[in-house]
Amino acid sequence: MTQENKKVVLAYSGGLDTSIILKWLILKGYDVIAFLADVGQKEDFEAAKAKALSLGASKVYIEDLKEEFVTDYIYPAFAAGAIYEGRYLLGTSLARPLIAKAQIEVAQKENAAFVAHGATGKGNDQIRFELTYYALQPDIQVLAPWKMPEFLSEFKGRSDMLDFADKHQIPVTASRKKPYSEDDNLLHISHEAGILEDPSAICDEEIYSRTVSPEKAPDTAEFVNLTFKNGHPICLKFLDGGKVVEGSLPIFNALNDLGSKHGIGRLDMVENRFVGIKSRGVYETPGGAILKAAHQDLCGLTIDREVMRLYELFAGKISDLIYNGFWFSPEMDVLSSAAKKIQENVEGDVTLKLYKGVAYPVARTSAKSLYNSELSSMDIEGGYNQVDAGGFIRINAIRLKAHHAIKSLK
Amino acid sequence: MTQENKKVVLAYSGGLDTSIILKWLILKGYDVIAFLADVGQKEDFEAAKAKALSLGASKVYIEDLKEEFVTDYIYPAFAAGAIYEGRYLLGTSLARPLIAKAQIEVAQKENAAFVAHGATGKGNDQIRFELTYYALQPDIQVLAPWKMPEFLSEFKGRSDMLDFADKHQIPVTASRKKPYSEDDNLLHISHEAGILEDPSAICDEEIYSRTVSPEKAPDTAEFVNLTFKNGHPICLKFLDGGKVVEGSLPIFNALNDLGSKHGIGRLDMVENRFVGIKSRGVYETPGGAILKAAHQDLCGLTIDREVMRLYELFAGKISDLIYNGFWFSPEMDVLSSAAKKIQENVEGDVTLKLYKGVAYPVARTSAKSLYNSELSSMDIEGGYNQVDAGGFIRINAIRLKAHHAIKSLK
Amino acid sequence: MTQENKKVVLAYSGGLDTSIILKWLILKGYDVIAFLADVGQKEDFEAAKAKALSLGASKVYIEDLKEEFVTDYIYPAFAAGAIYEGRYLLGTSLARPLIAKAQIEVAQKENAAFVAHGATGKGNDQIRFELTYYALQPDIQVLAPWKMPEFLSEFKGRSDMLDFADKHQIPVTASRKKPYSEDDNLLHISHEAGILEDPSAICDEEIYSRTVSPEKAPDTAEFVNLTFKNGHPICLKFLDGGKVVEGSLPIFNALNDLGSKHGIGRLDMVENRFVGIKSRGVYETPGGAILKAAHQDLCGLTIDREVMRLYELFAGKISDLIYNGFWFSPEMDVLSSAAKKIQENVEGDVTLKLYKGVAYPVARTSAKSLYNSELSSMDIEGGYNQVDAGGFIRINAIRLKAHHAIKSLK
Amino acid sequence: MTQENKKVVLAYSGGLDTSIILKWLILKGYDVIAFLADVGQKEDFEAAKAKALSLGASKVYIEDLKEEFVTDYIYPAFAAGAIYEGRYLLGTSLARPLIAKAQIEVAQKENAAFVAHGATGKGNDQIRFELTYYALQPDIQVLAPWKMPEFLSEFKGRSDMLDFADKHQIPVTASRKKPYSEDDNLLHISHEAGILEDPSAICDEEIYSRTVSPEKAPDTAEFVNLTFKNGHPICLKFLDGGKVVEGSLPIFNALNDLGSKHGIGRLDMVENRFVGIKSRGVYETPGGAILKAAHQDLCGLTIDREVMRLYELFAGKISDLIYNGFWFSPEMDVLSSAAKKIQENVEGDVTLKLYKGVAYPVARTSAKSLYNSELSSMDIEGGYNQVDAGGFIRINAIRLKAHHAIKSLK
Repeated sequence: MTQENKKVVLAYSGGLDTSIILKWLILKGYDVIAFLADVGQKEDFEAAKAKALSLGASKVYIEDLKEEFVTDYIYPAFAAGAIYEGRYLLGTSLARPLIAKAQIEVAQKENAAFVAHGATGKGNDQIRFELTYYALQPDIQVLAPWKMPEFLSEFKGRSDMLDFADKHQIPVTASRKKPYSEDDNLLHISHEAGILEDPSAICDEEIYSRTVSPEKAPDTAEFVNLTFKNGHPICLKFLDGGKVVEGSLPIFNALNDLGSKHGIGRLDMVENRFVGIKSRGVYETPGGAILKAAHQDLCGLTIDREVMRLYELFAGKISDLIYNGFWFSPEMDVLSSAAKKIQENVEGDVTLKLYKGVAYPVARTSAKSLYNSELSSMDIEGGYNQVDAGGFIRINAIRLKAHHAIKSLK
Repeated sequence: MTQENKKVVLAYSGGLDTSIILKWLILKGYDVIAFLADVGQKEDFEAAKAKALSLGASKVYIEDLKEEFVTDYIYPAFAAGAIYEGRYLLGTSLARPLIAKAQIEVAQKENAAFVAHGATGKGNDQIRFELTYYALQPDIQVLAPWKMPEFLSEFKGRSDMLDFADKHQIPVTASRKKPYSEDDNLLHISHEAGILEDPSAICDEEIYSRTVSPEKAPDTAEFVNLTFKNGHPICLKFLDGGKVVEGSLPIFNALNDLGSKHGIGRLDMVENRFVGIKSRGVYETPGGAILKAAHQDLCGLTIDREVMRLYELFAGKISDLIYNGFWFSPEMDVLSSAAKKIQENVEGDVTLKLYKGVAYPVARTSAKSLYNSELSSMDIEGGYNQVDAGGFIRINAIRLKAHHAIKSLK
Repeated sequence: MTQENKKVVLAYSGGLDTSIILKWLILKGYDVIAFLADVGQKEDFEAAKAKALSLGASKVYIEDLKEEFVTDYIYPAFAAGAIYEGRYLLGTSLARPLIAKAQIEVAQKENAAFVAHGATGKGNDQIRFELTYYALQPDIQVLAPWKMPEFLSEFKGRSDMLDFADKHQIPVTASRKKPYSEDDNLLHISHEAGILEDPSAICDEEIYSRTVSPEKAPDTAEFVNLTFKNGHPICLKFLDGGKVVEGSLPIFNALNDLGSKHGIGRLDMVENRFVGIKSRGVYETPGGAILKAAHQDLCGLTIDREVMRLYELFAGKISDLIYNGFWFSPEMDVLSSAAKKIQENVEGDVTLKLYKGVAYPVARTSAKSLYNSELSSMDIEGGYNQVDAGGFIRINAIRLKAHHAIKSLK
Repeated sequence: MTQENKKVVLAYSGGLDTSIILKWLILKGYDVIAFLADVGQKEDFEAAKAKALSLGASKVYIEDLKEEFVTDYIYPAFAAGAIYEGRYLLGTSLARPLIAKAQIEVAQKENAAFVAHGATGKGNDQIRFELTYYALQPDIQVLAPWKMPEFLSEFKGRSDMLDFADKHQIPVTASRKKPYSEDDNLLHISHEAGILEDPSAICDEEIYSRTVSPEKAPDTAEFVNLTFKNGHPICLKFLDGGKVVEGSLPIFNALNDLGSKHGIGRLDMVENRFVGIKSRGVYETPGGAILKAAHQDLCGLTIDREVMRLYELFAGKISDLIYNGFWFSPEMDVLSSAAKKIQENVEGDVTLKLYKGVAYPVARTSAKSLYNSELSSMDIEGGYNQVDAGGFIRINAIRLKAHHAIKSLK
C-alpha cells in the first residue's frame, strides 16, 4: 500500500456515535467506506446507507450475514457448550468476529489500509473487533477513535458530541437517548451501562424489549420437539398443531419467537470483562436459551461420561476465548475441532415444555443413545454383574485406606 | 476383633428392603444393630424403630443429622459450586457420606466388625456408602446383600421378597409400592427407575411430591433477600412482610418452603453413574435451587476473574468427587480447602425474585464487591486509561499475527 | 457361539508362567491357541512356538507387530507428549493395547469364545489387556488365571508352579530366575518387584540390561540431527560420518542403539498404579528418551503459546489414559484427534548432543517456526511497539488493583 | 503525595544501562534513589553504590534478600512443582517479584511517587516488575524508560548510549560487552539475545559460566542425601565424607556448588514470553536442577495418586503465573495455599547420584510413605484381593462396551 492510501472501512451502525466518527474521519482526511453488517439487529439499513452517504462516505456496503451467523457461529458455539461464567450465552461476543471478518474482506477488496470501529476503550468489543482484524490481516491499521487521544480530547462528554453533530448536520434521533446502552442481533439484545451500572438496582421491566415478562407469558405451556444432528438443530416441530420448521435460520427465528412469547432467556448478572473490569449486563436471549436447554439435555443421552468431562473442560475454554475475542486463533482452531468431533454422536430429539420463563426438557430419544435401559434398571441384570461392583469399590478404596493410615500418624 | 464378632450395623430405613435384609442377616447368624439416620427424610422414626426391634434387631440407633447435614455438607458443597454435569444438585450424593460416617461411628462404639446397607449393585449409593466406610475404617467388613451371590440367588425378583416378608411377618405397606424408586432428604427428593426408566417418556405430574407445578405456583412473584458470609447463607429476609430467618437449618427449611411453593428446583435428566451406566433421574431440590442461584450471583460480584476460573475448575472436580463417593478422600481435602479459601470474600446480599419455577437474582451488593462503577462506566475514566487498551490488544495480537504467517504458508 | 465353544486364545510369552497357564487351561478342557506378539522383545519365537505345541496348543500364531508398534503407538504417543507422572515413557503401557488388539483379531478369526493372559491381579497390565478386549469385542470372555480362585488356590507360591512344571514336563530355564520381573519391547525394558520392591534400596548396576551405565558410555559426545514431520521423526542423520536413516522402524532402532551406547533413558521411580497401589519401577528407554527430548524441543519452536497450554493439558490426560489401559476408548479418540491436529505444524530439525546419559537439544530449525528473531530481539523493533507493552501491563494490573483494595479492608 | 513529589526509586544494577537511566532521570528533574537488591548475583555492591552516588543519586539502598529469596520464593515454588513449559526452572521470574516488593517498600518508606526499572519493553521482566508494583501499591507511578517515547527517541542504538555515557562521565566497563545479555541470581544465570538469538546456532561452551561442562565434570559420581519436610529441603548430607548442611540458604548454596561441579542444570530452549513472542534462552540452574529431581522423586512416594493429578494441574498454572509476573495475585494466593496443603506430607529422604550433568534419584524413604510393599508385591496378598480386580475392570469396561455398540452403527 502506498503512503497515499487513506482508505478506511468503518463498521457503521447508522447511530449517532459512528456517524460522528464517520464525519470526523473524513475531516481528518480519510476516505471512508461505511460497512453495515446485518446480523439480525433491528435497523433500517437503507436509511443508514443514505445517512452515511449524506455524511460523505465514498461507498456503503450492506451485508446480510444472518445465515452465516446462525450456521457458522451460533450453532457451533452452542454445540460446543459455550456459556460464559456459567450464564451468559455470548450474544454480542459471537457476532463481533463475524462482523470484523466481513469488514476485513471489504478492506481487502477495496485495498484499504485502515479499518475503524466505534467501540469504547473499556469494553470487550474493541478487543473482539481488533483481534479479528489483526488475526486475519496482520498489517491492517486500526483506527479506534475512542482510544485516540486526539479524538478523546475533542469529545469529552455527550455535549461535545451533540455540538459536533449540530455543526455537521448529523441527525440526532428525536427520541430521547436511552439512559443505558444496547447491542442487538439475532441471538440476543444486551442492556448495560447508564442506569444499569448499579448492580444493586433492580432492572426495570420496561428495559426488556425482546421478551415478555414471565408474568405476561401464556398461562398454558407449549410443547415443541427439537431434532439435532451433529449437535446442530435441524428440525423444530410444534407438538400442538404440528407445524414443522427446517433450515438453520428459520429454526432459529422460530426459537426466538417461542422464547419471546414465553419470557424465556432473561439474564441479569455481573460478569468479568477481559480488560479486568467487572460489569453488569442484562441480556435477553430467547431462542438461545431454548436451544441451550435442549442441546444440553441431548448431550446427556449421547455423550460418554469421560468424553463429557472433556466436553465440559473444552466448553469452559471455548467460552473464554469467544468472550475475549479469540474466535480466530490457533487455540480456538484446536478446541473447535475437538468439540466438533465430540458432537458427531449428538443426534436425536428433545421434547421441551415452554412455560413462563423456562424451557424444560421433558423427554429425549436418540438412535445413538448410550442409555441402556437394561443396564440402568435396578431390577434387570442385562450383562451387568452386580458382584463386580464389590471389586470395583474395593479397588477404588485401596488409596483411601493408605491415606487413612498416614492421617492416623499425625 | 475376635472371630466371634458377628455384630453388624445396618443402615436401616424402615422400608421393606432393609427390613428383609435385617431379618436375613439375623437368619445368617449376625447380631444386627439397626441404624437410622435422620437427614430430613419423611419417615416415622419411632415406628421404624419398633419395626426393627420386632424383627430382631438387638439395638436401634436413631440419629438426627439434619443440622450437620446442612452446615457441614450442603452449605460447603454449594459454596464450592458443586453441581453434577451442569445440572444435578447432588441431593442424594451429599447425604450418603454423612450417613455412612455416622454409621461407622456406631460400629466403632459398638465394636462391630461389620456394616451393611441395602443399596443395589448397579447404583451410585453403594459406592458412596462403602468408600466412606473404608476411608474412615479401613478394616471394616462390608455386607452388601445386593452384591452377595447368596442373597441374589435367594431373591431373584419382587415375589421372592414378598414371600420372604410373608414368611417372616415383615409388614408390607398396604399402599401399592410406587412403580419407581425414591430417595429423599432435606436437600431433595429423587425419583428414578421403574416407569421413569424410559428417558423418552414424560414424567407424570403426580410423581412430583415436594414442589407444586409451576402452573400451580402463585401468580405473583415473591421477593426475598439472602445474606452470605464466607459463601454460606446467614440470613434470609422476606421483602414482603419483613420476616427474618437466621441459623443454618432454619434458613434452609425456609428456602425449601419457598421453593416448594413456587415450583422451583425440578430437574429431569439423563446422567452418568460412576459404574459406567447412564440413568435417568427426576429431582426436586426446591431450597437448593434458590440457594444455588443466589450464591452464583454473589460470586460474580465478589470473586476475581482468574480466581473464578480456578473456582469453576475446582467445582467440576468437587462435583465428580461428591457424586462418585469420594467425599472423604485426600483429593477432596485439598479441593475443599481451596474452595473454602476462595469463599472468604463471598459475602453480601442477593435479592431474588421467585416466580413459577425460577429464582431470578435481580440485585446484589457486597462490602467486598470487586465491581467498580467508575471503572466499568463507559463514560467515566476513573483511573482507567482507554489508550492503554490499544497496547493491550496489540500485544495480545502478536501471537495471532505469527500464526497467520504460518497458516499462509500452507 | 455355541455352548461347545471352548476355544481360548492365550497371550503366550514362552516363559514359565504362561506355559503353566497354557497347560492348565488344556487340563480344564479348553482348546488353547497360543498367540505370540513380536513387539521387539528379546525372544526366540520359534523355540516358543515349539514349546507351545509340545504343551498341547492346538495352534500357534506369531505376529510381527514391530512396525505397527512404532508407527501407530509409539510415535503418536510421543507426538502427543505422553509421559506418565512427569517421568515414565509408558513402554509397557503402549504395547499392551496393540498385543490385545492383535489377540482379539485372532480370536475373531478363530471364532474363539475366550481370550486369556498371564498378568497378575495387582498390576496394570491385566487392565490394559482386558479393557482392550472388552472395548474391541464386548462379548468376549476373559480367562485371567491370576484372578481365578480355582487357579490361585492351586498355585499358592513358586514351589507349586515348579511342581506343576515338573509334573507336566514344562521346561524350566536352567538359568536361575531373576529375583525381580521384567517386561521388554522395542520401546523399553522394565524391571520391578522382587528385590526392587524396596524403594530405599539402590538398584544394582547389573540389573540394567539395555543401556550401558553413563560411566561406561563414550567419553566423547556424539551429535545427530532428527527431522520431524507432523510430530513424527522421519529422518535421522549422524552428524559425524553422515549416515542417514529413514523409515519409522529403522529410525527407532537407530535411536535405541544410540541411547544404549550413551547410557540414555534410565529411570528409577515410584509410580501410582491404576489399582491404587504405588509401585517402584526401574526403566530403560534409550531411543524413547532421545525422541522425547528432540520432540519437546521442536514443539517449543513451532507451537503457539496457548496451543501449547492445551497440548500440555491433553498430554497429561492422554498419559493417564494410556497408563490406565484406555487406549481404545471414546475419550482417547477425542484427545488423539486433538493432539494430531496440534502436531500438524511440528516439523523441522533438532540437533542433539548425546553424552553420558543425556540427550541435549542444542539447535533447532523449522520452516514453520513461530520464532521471529526480529520480534524477540531486544534491540530491533520489527513491528513490535514497546510502548504498547505499557498498556498491556496496566490493563493486566486492573484486577490486581481491585484485589488490593479489598485486601486492605481486612 | 504533593504535586512536587519527584522522588523515584530506581532498581539499579550498577551496569551501564541503569546508570544511564539514573542520570537521565536526574536530568529530567527527578530525585533518584538507587535501590540495589542482593539476590545472590555476582556484583560489587559497594562499587555500585559509589557509582550511583557519583552519578547523582540522592540515596542508595542495598538490601540482602538472599535468605528471603530462598525461603519464601525458591523453596515454595519448587515445592509447588513450578517449571515453565516443562523445562525452565524460573530463575529470573522468581527473583523479580521479590526485588519489586522490596523496591516498593523503599518507595513507601521514602514516600516516593515513582518507581523505575531498566527492563526493555519486549521482555517478561518489565511485566513482573510492574505487576508487582501495581499489586502492592496501586497508585504508584512507573517510569520504564524503555517504553517512554522520549527516552526511545534519544537512545536509538548502542552508540547513543555510549555517547551519553561519555558526555556524562558514566564509566563504561573496560571489558568488551558480552554479545548477549545475562541475568543472574542465587537460582540461576540466564544467557539470551545477541548471538544467542538464532535458535539454530549452537551455544558456545564459553558462554556457560556457572557450571562446568559435563565433559569436564568429575569422572566419579558423588552421592548425597537430601531430607525434606513440608516439601522444603531441611538437611543435605554428603554420603562420602559425612558432611551435613542445614539451614535454607546454606543448603541451597551447597546444592549450587554440587551442581556447578557436576555440570548439572544446563538448559537451552525456545520459550513463549507473555508478550506473545518466542525467545531462546540458555540457562544454568545447578542447585535448582538437583532440588527439582529430589523433590519430584519424593512426591512420587508420598503423594496420593489423585492428589498428584491436582498437584500437576496446579503446578502448570503456578508456573505460568510466576513466569507471567502474577506472583502477587489473588489466583496465586489460592494456588499457593493449595500447593502448601499438598506438601504437608512430603517429607523424607532422597538419595541422589550426581554425575556428569544429571542428578539421579536412586533411593527414597519416608515416614509418610504411601508405598506399601505388601500391597505392591506381585507375590504377597497383603489385604489386596486379586479377584476384586476382575470386577474393577469389568465395571470400567461398561462404558467402552456401550461405545462399541454405537460405533458399530456407523
